[in-house]
Amino acid sequence: MTKSEYSEIESYMLSAVKDSAHDKHHIYRVLNSAVDISKSENSVDFDVLVTACLLHDIGREKEFAAPTVCHAEIGAEMAYNFLLALNWTGEKALHVKECIITHRYRGNKPPKTIEAKILFDADKIDAAGVLGIARTLIAGGLKAEALYLMNDDGEIITAANTKRPSFFHEYNFKLKNIYDYFYTKRAKEIVGSRQKAAINFYNDLYKEITSNYDNGIKKYLL
Amino acid sequence: MTKSEYSEIESYMLSAVKDSAHDKHHIYRVLNSAVDISKSENSVDFDVLVTACLLHDIGREKEFAAPTVCHAEIGAEMAYNFLLALNWTGEKALHVKECIITHRYRGNKPPKTIEAKILFDADKIDAAGVLGIARTLIAGGLKAEALYLMNDDGEIITAANTKRPSFFHEYNFKLKNIYDYFYTKRAKEIVGSRQKAAINFYNDLYKEITSNYDNGIKKYLL
Repeated sequence: MTKSEYSEIESYMLSAVKDSAHDKHHIYRVLNSAVDISKSENSVDFDVLVTACLLHDIGREKEFAAPTVCHAEIGAEMAYNFLLALNWTGEKALHVKECIITHRYRGNKPPKTIEAKILFDADKIDAAGVLGIARTLIAGGLKAEALYLMNDDGEIITAANTKRPSFFHEYNFKLKNIYDYFYTKRAKEIVGSRQKAAINFYNDLYKEITSNYDNGIKKYLL
Repeated sequence: MTKSEYSEIESYMLSAVKDSAHDKHHIYRVLNSAVDISKSENSVDFDVLVTACLLHDIGREKEFAAPTVCHAEIGAEMAYNFLLALNWTGEKALHVKECIITHRYRGNKPPKTIEAKILFDADKIDAAGVLGIARTLIAGGLKAEALYLMNDDGEIITAANTKRPSFFHEYNFKLKNIYDYFYTKRAKEIVGSRQKAAINFYNDLYKEITSNYDNGIKKYLL
């Protein structure tokens, strides 16, 4: 891929990516992680990998506007059409399309090619560690979700609550488990060192909140 | 204060508090911290303290709608009028009003009475530790602010950037320094144990992001 080809695809990505949690820095980090991972893999098609990384979230705005739309499905279609218009072969454009379709953690279509597996892992690295926590909190803010919900006994709800999600819901049902779902050795290595920081944050946060309630108004005044 | 008087003031607070970073849980945590602190202080007027805690952020919605409005000033006025309507004496209502006016970290009016100092400290405890970090990230999401900005050399900007704030700006210009500004011994004790967790989070986050760029696309492909 020449620098000018890269710039053309990058410009298309920049025109499509807006929200803070999936902003352009997320795209560049996914690209960086993918390049890092690819150094430990054989026979990687870099043109396909770099392009799939740059374009993997271009469908986000459409999902944000209409939550029943899957950003992976629609983004894959947008990327495919964009690449054909750039005179890519149908085969290569289809390869990128399939990488994008299968990048979702919660999707039911596992990645097949090495490029698709690397994109999947690179995107999941960005949801690991304290970076994944920071991005999840920002995304919660964008959707006006609460940090936590409490039950009638004044305890933080950590069980599933899909009707009213919160950070504590998202952590316990996504972030905490993400470390078990990586395809490549290098990705496992990268997130291995980040898992402890994320666990520490969660435990510290839980302790700060619960100790506050334990020493507060219920105990002394009411 | 009777339980029914408490409920009446609480209901007014609940009708006024909406956004996630300053939601009702923040109010209850401030109240809890204030009660905790008050156990180590003499001659605290609990009616004034509890009421000031419950009502300290009722001006937030007005500031959110019009950022030049100071939520402390307008909230203090709202609280004063509300309490007079509840048949509080002018003197007590004024005491609550002054607590609310002086609770802002970035304000230029220091708290004078012990109740005002306790409210100030209790509110600042909620900006300390990893809880303060989580709340700041959610607040950034609500305003669609970025996690970080980068300069032309691809380095995270940690210097002041008030035109385009980010979490890294907010951390370096508020959260990092908050530990030096507490009035009461008990508050210093509470945040003392939380400071290290916050520093660890920031350092881990900085490391995760910079190592990503150091091993990425710039090094290998472009």
